Amino acid sequence: MQLLEERILKDGKVFPGNVLKVDSFLNHQVDVELINEIGKEFYRLFKDCGVNKIFTIEASGIGIACITAQYFHVPVVFAKKTLGKNIAADVYSTPIKSFTHGKTYDVIVSQEFLNKDDKILIIDDFLAQGCALNGLIELIKSAGAEIVGAGIVIEKAFQQGGDLIRSEGIRVESLARIESMTDDGKITFCK
Amino acid sequence: MQLLEERILKDGKVFPGNVLKVDSFLNHQVDVELINEIGKEFYRLFKDCGVNKIFTIEASGIGIACITAQYFHVPVVFAKKTLGKNIAADVYSTPIKSFTHGKTYDVIVSQEFLNKDDKILIIDDFLAQGCALNGLIELIKSAGAEIVGAGIVIEKAFQQGGDLIRSEGIRVESLARIESMTDDGKITFCK
Repeated sequence: MQLLEERILKDGKVFPGNVLKVDSFLNHQVDVELINEIGKEFYRLFKDCGVNKIFTIEASGIGIACITAQYFHVPVVFAKKTLGKNIAADVYSTPIKSFTHGKTYDVIVSQEFLNKDDKILIIDDFLAQGCALNGLIELIKSAGAEIVGAGIVIEKAFQQGGDLIRSEGIRVESLARIESMTDDGKITFCK
Repeated sequence: MQLLEERILKDGKVFPGNVLKVDSFLNHQVDVELINEIGKEFYRLFKDCGVNKIFTIEASGIGIACITAQYFHVPVVFAKKTLGKNIAADVYSTPIKSFTHGKTYDVIVSQEFLNKDDKILIIDDFLAQGCALNGLIELIKSAGAEIVGAGIVIEKAFQQGGDLIRSEGIRVESLARIESMTDDGKITFCK
């Protein structure tokens, strides 16, 4: 998606260790007009798939999921991160490792909001190692629901998460796929 | 807001200790069509105030803020909760006590995204004791920006947060104001 790639080149900041900061428009300050274009593009890609629910994970996925859901006219469900020791009985839960924060969270969703008849589109801001996306997939499988696919804003295609998940037969559509980043700030996108 | 009050009466669940669960439409599963009506109403209330930025706190405020921001054509900034020990130098931070989780979080926002020329509308899902809202106000004051007001979806008007903040001269507009809740599930709204 050209508009997104241009914005990443203009406002993204690269830090050593393959860190890409896009917090001026995506995940701290949010450019809602840009997210609207992103939502339209996810709709174009998945509009014929019978999606009846969008599923994401707090926090930065929520805004993107809600804007996208306006095009599909479906509700959003967001999984919650918890470090609590007690997991309630009426939730699905799975551990998710966060490389950014160096922690493992239990991520939960109320059983009430994922059902076996659901056709679910996953939306998230980033895909790198695939930990968050794999966790969301596990939660959907626990509910016996159908995964239509995953719409990702930015994929670090030089890490293995996306390819591993695609190899399991899950459709993953990333609007910007980064082939490489250098410590001096050069970003190259996959063709 | 009648549509919202009706929805709270229909789908809200009251638990002992003045707990109101609205997670089937507001803060776990999100009815995006309803949030759209909520966003329109916030726009009606604050459209003449020169708002140039919407400010909220993760996680459940983000979706409401993003949908609302579409009407104002302004960006959203969301404050982040952290339990980390190290606060970076380039952020404003304030502690916020969470009654729901029995913890105190440090809440942070990048100094880059709140500026002294900003005219800020705060958006959040709940107002009860006012801890979160007070924290957001503190962050805005740290930046020297102007607080246009706060748009709240549900206020527990029988708790003191809203009145205390109004008494400081801050405009607080809550779309549903709950006067009382009983343990057997009866909800009464303020007239």
